[in-house]
Amino acid sequence: MPAMDYIERLEVIDVRFPTSLELHGSDAMNLDPDYSSAYVILHTANGSAGYGMAFTIGRGNDVVCTAIEALAPLVVGIRVVDLERDPGLVSRTLLGDSQFRWLGPEKGVIHMAIGAVVNAGWDLLARNDGTPMWKYLSGLNPDQLVGCIDFTYLTDALTPGEALDIFQSAEDGKADRVELLERDGYPAYATTPGWLGYSDGRLVALCEEAVAEGFTQIKLKVGGDVEDDRRRLSLARKTVGSDVAIAVDANQRWDVDAAIEWVNALAEYDIAWIEEPTSPDDIVGHAAIARAVSPIPVATGEHCHNRVMFKQFLQLDAMQVLQLDAARVAGITENIAVLALAAKFDVRVCPHAGGVGLCEMVRHLSFFDYAAVSGSLEGRMIEWADHLHEHFTDPATISDGRYVAPNRPGFSAQMIPSSVDAFTHPAHHRENR
Amino acid sequence: MPAMDYIERLEVIDVRFPTSLELHGSDAMNLDPDYSSAYVILHTANGSAGYGMAFTIGRGNDVVCTAIEALAPLVVGIRVVDLERDPGLVSRTLLGDSQFRWLGPEKGVIHMAIGAVVNAGWDLLARNDGTPMWKYLSGLNPDQLVGCIDFTYLTDALTPGEALDIFQSAEDGKADRVELLERDGYPAYATTPGWLGYSDGRLVALCEEAVAEGFTQIKLKVGGDVEDDRRRLSLARKTVGSDVAIAVDANQRWDVDAAIEWVNALAEYDIAWIEEPTSPDDIVGHAAIARAVSPIPVATGEHCHNRVMFKQFLQLDAMQVLQLDAARVAGITENIAVLALAAKFDVRVCPHAGGVGLCEMVRHLSFFDYAAVSGSLEGRMIEWADHLHEHFTDPATISDGRYVAPNRPGFSAQMIPSSVDAFTHPAHHRENR
Repeated sequence: MPAMDYIERLEVIDVRFPTSLELHGSDAMNLDPDYSSAYVILHTANGSAGYGMAFTIGRGNDVVCTAIEALAPLVVGIRVVDLERDPGLVSRTLLGDSQFRWLGPEKGVIHMAIGAVVNAGWDLLARNDGTPMWKYLSGLNPDQLVGCIDFTYLTDALTPGEALDIFQSAEDGKADRVELLERDGYPAYATTPGWLGYSDGRLVALCEEAVAEGFTQIKLKVGGDVEDDRRRLSLARKTVGSDVAIAVDANQRWDVDAAIEWVNALAEYDIAWIEEPTSPDDIVGHAAIARAVSPIPVATGEHCHNRVMFKQFLQLDAMQVLQLDAARVAGITENIAVLALAAKFDVRVCPHAGGVGLCEMVRHLSFFDYAAVSGSLEGRMIEWADHLHEHFTDPATISDGRYVAPNRPGFSAQMIPSSVDAFTHPAHHRENR
Repeated sequence: MPAMDYIERLEVIDVRFPTSLELHGSDAMNLDPDYSSAYVILHTANGSAGYGMAFTIGRGNDVVCTAIEALAPLVVGIRVVDLERDPGLVSRTLLGDSQFRWLGPEKGVIHMAIGAVVNAGWDLLARNDGTPMWKYLSGLNPDQLVGCIDFTYLTDALTPGEALDIFQSAEDGKADRVELLERDGYPAYATTPGWLGYSDGRLVALCEEAVAEGFTQIKLKVGGDVEDDRRRLSLARKTVGSDVAIAVDANQRWDVDAAIEWVNALAEYDIAWIEEPTSPDDIVGHAAIARAVSPIPVATGEHCHNRVMFKQFLQLDAMQVLQLDAARVAGITENIAVLALAAKFDVRVCPHAGGVGLCEMVRHLSFFDYAAVSGSLEGRMIEWADHLHEHFTDPATISDGRYVAPNRPGFSAQMIPSSVDAFTHPAHHRENR
């Protein structure tokens, strides 16, 4: 790769899959999602490319595409050699623009757009290096990892020195853990059986399938009707037996008091965690719920919009399971900070996946976490939903209930060109030079 | 107005003013803002119109315009008579779309876009009624006001019954307070002297001007350099004397520990409040700062993205001055909830203004608050910055340091057509039927 290669253009494509037709992904808040990708490709002058995406559920995917497009002038022209030296460069450049910052700050559409571009930048680096992302990240030294983290607003909970200690401690045994991951993969749990729109028959059949496939935890969507939830939980429990854990996910359906009451009404079915019981912004509310439903752990994070929110959830012991998302915060760069925070507070990370492309991307973060950050698999697993993997050039795969270690270069966000063509939303393919 | 009138089309215009040339609005985080408006007009079949806007500081204004445009299909077709019967209708319709909700939820670009459209809907109602917005709102009965509030995620802090009590208590003496507002206006404070980019000479001259104009509080931007801040505060204090209050605004510049240290280094100049000391998302951090710098009150809210965040700031006593914004949350509808929360927690409301159009709009909310919610002026005042008022058909005006009661119909977001034409960003005027 000649030293003077640079990002020459940014391409954005609005890709939408009509998943609502089958009620995949239906839950108490999201009745008819069309899994969509605001898909970004950074093209370099020498013909390399980096791929990233923001995930949405349909309408508004064009808004994220417009936001990504608006960011293009800030990344076009960046030299690849500068990015190699300083992998936090794209993130710092995009987050540092004060005019765009007003649109958040660091939240919502503009932050998701920044995340997509940041991830495409990382993807470019790992592809150039010929390395899968998790191994690329695990190969950075502790100082480089610390250098990626934006400690602004974090230092009351995590200092650069503390983060360095975390990464340095993980140097010990890293090579063995990398080997273990390549051999055994990483634990997964199955969400596929539990969508709210599925019939009881389909629920039972998919529960049986999940057990047969070796999953040791499944997840059911709840929050529509408490008696329905009890019936479905009872059916699921009967089907999977007592050795398979069952988590439940309310997708933000309740107020604080309602959450406490409802979760307690489901407790007899031995709940592995209660996920998103209320507003993803309600740190104080999650803390109150966690105290009231203990020992059932409270899980949240897929809508947690930045590291400052994660910090507070951890400070108030409001999340016992941290469910980071690969495409909600400002990309891998911010997720390195989130993983370091989780390690500092000793909270397990069980990433959000599903949708389109999330399984493909987020597995790299958990593999990296085990290899080079927490060094732990204790209670940790990655969500698995069996949708839309066929559209990816490096699809996530499962073997005996575990994610197989990805071994192709990059962050796995690249879609098969024919899929992109087939599902591009009309009039939303744009290039920016 | 015939009963069958309906919203026929939504017009969006990307309007940007090149304020960065003069360093108006420059602060520690926002170095070169170009005050901009994602300007929306709802046109009805019978030729009425409602005006609203989201405020941004330049780049990305087109992203908000795209988001507003994307919402158009949800509001076009709404009958005016239905909106009159149920003023929360636009808000509920837009916030209820689960696909758009994914882009937040209830934050950032999509939420600001919803706020602009919601406000345009309210503007339409008040114009049709021939009433300035603050009087229109004050004329709603307590049940109607409660009916506007979305209590989702609020009930652990504010129930519908408690909100009803607040509005009912304010019925007492409302007519007198309306009269008082029309006679005396509402207290204001002046931000105009304090921009970080201004020279010392300009600072002193503008401080003298503010005192001469009758302001009893001014505000200085801080957070660039502590010695500069001390020099500028000392100059300002010498200029305005001890009877005029001086608030300071750090625009999110610090981490928690730095904020505490810096504020304490400025305390000798008798600080009226410290505004936005750290991340607007950091409720726990603001609470820690408030405890450490007490009795200096902590002020924040202009970037507080929804009612759930305000709720938590109040629950943790993390804001002693609540600075709502007219165009950040989901419009008047959500701000009614915020005002009710403030009344419940007995926290004073001193709205954020300035930018473009914010003074024009937000004054209606404070006037309404005094007339029909808190019934109090205690420690309350509206920010005043003397920029860009000339572009509005119903500009905010100040007399003897107080906002004059607006008396023209509507929410005052309408700009003069020739200003809109002159400052429309190229290629960003769109109509949606």
